[in-house]
Amino acid sequence: MRDVVIGMADGLTVPFALAAGLSAVAASRVIVIAGLAEIAAGSIAMGLGGYLAARGDAEHYASERAREEIEIVEKPDDERREVTEILESYGLTGEQIRPILSAFESKPKVWVDWMMRFELGLEEPDPGRALTSAVTIAVSYVAGGLIPLAPYMIATQATIALEYSVAATVVALAIFGYIKGRFTGAPPLRSSIQTTVIGGVAAAAAYGIAKLFSS
Amino acid sequence: MRDVVIGMADGLTVPFALAAGLSAVAASRVIVIAGLAEIAAGSIAMGLGGYLAARGDAEHYASERAREEIEIVEKPDDERREVTEILESYGLTGEQIRPILSAFESKPKVWVDWMMRFELGLEEPDPGRALTSAVTIAVSYVAGGLIPLAPYMIATQATIALEYSVAATVVALAIFGYIKGRFTGAPPLRSSIQTTVIGGVAAAAAYGIAKLFSS
Repeated sequence: MRDVVIGMADGLTVPFALAAGLSAVAASRVIVIAGLAEIAAGSIAMGLGGYLAARGDAEHYASERAREEIEIVEKPDDERREVTEILESYGLTGEQIRPILSAFESKPKVWVDWMMRFELGLEEPDPGRALTSAVTIAVSYVAGGLIPLAPYMIATQATIALEYSVAATVVALAIFGYIKGRFTGAPPLRSSIQTTVIGGVAAAAAYGIAKLFSS
Repeated sequence: MRDVVIGMADGLTVPFALAAGLSAVAASRVIVIAGLAEIAAGSIAMGLGGYLAARGDAEHYASERAREEIEIVEKPDDERREVTEILESYGLTGEQIRPILSAFESKPKVWVDWMMRFELGLEEPDPGRALTSAVTIAVSYVAGGLIPLAPYMIATQATIALEYSVAATVVALAIFGYIKGRFTGAPPLRSSIQTTVIGGVAAAAAYGIAKLFSS
């Protein structure tokens, strides 16, 4: 669900701004084609890019884990010192740390788990999630992008389509910003306003640039 | 530097794909305007969106921290149980955990630090970094986006410009993918190939969509 919101919000913003910008200089037909090309490119860049990044993270985790597993066998003194340093930074004394070290030495898997999380700050990635997440983001980007574009598909006059596109997109951005806030823990109303402002500023900039370079 | 690479890679991909797609149906002048509008919209969406997200994270951290600070005073038993549960999951016994709890009770700041990191998994965000990072990503997006667009500014015939744009962008994607790999810890050569493939697939999809809808 989080991925749906991310994909939709991005899909709404850039195609909306691009279409608004082009409405200053081109006919609806060109705007629709440009918008669809952007949606295709953007969804693939986000989806495929996100998938490959997640797969990279999973491999990074596996290789770091293999390294830690070797190190606690081959350089146990170094690893013990690392544990001690981390725990000392939290105010524990040598005497309090010793039993923890003994516990780790009798359970190498727990020790490696601990080093991954507290020395390296790495969480084990879920390999199955990467593909689902990538596909969800890409599909949501397409769905989001079609909202600002739909009016240009119906109205041949771009300046008229722009008005409907602005209205539809502002409503959609406000709703998605609100839902996004609920998912990310931000105050929903503020998230709603922020998302709408980002879309508006981006569209205004695109419109301004297009006007400037077309005259 | 990491932000430069992220911004550039994204800036290269989508404007490149959009321009390639439009080259099937429009003149260089329209492509340049659409590309510049996309660059304006994309850089603002990424930069402003990233900045507001980072500011939100900082506020989330501050409010969670304030909550933990109150909880260790008002519900110390609950917090002690949380510490015990976390440490037990790492194989420590009650006897080993007791001195750690005493250490925390005598140093409330350390206790809160520990809860933030190990119960909530939150790192303290650097507030100054958010703005620098946002501006860097936005500027890099613009710089990256101008590479695939430059040939269309010079050659009036879009099909000719496309060839130069493909050549320039493939080289740039390969170089940036390589540098990105060095920064993210991925094997640089594979990162280089992946980045180039993402750009190529996105451009091919945009081109295909544009061809399809223009005929």
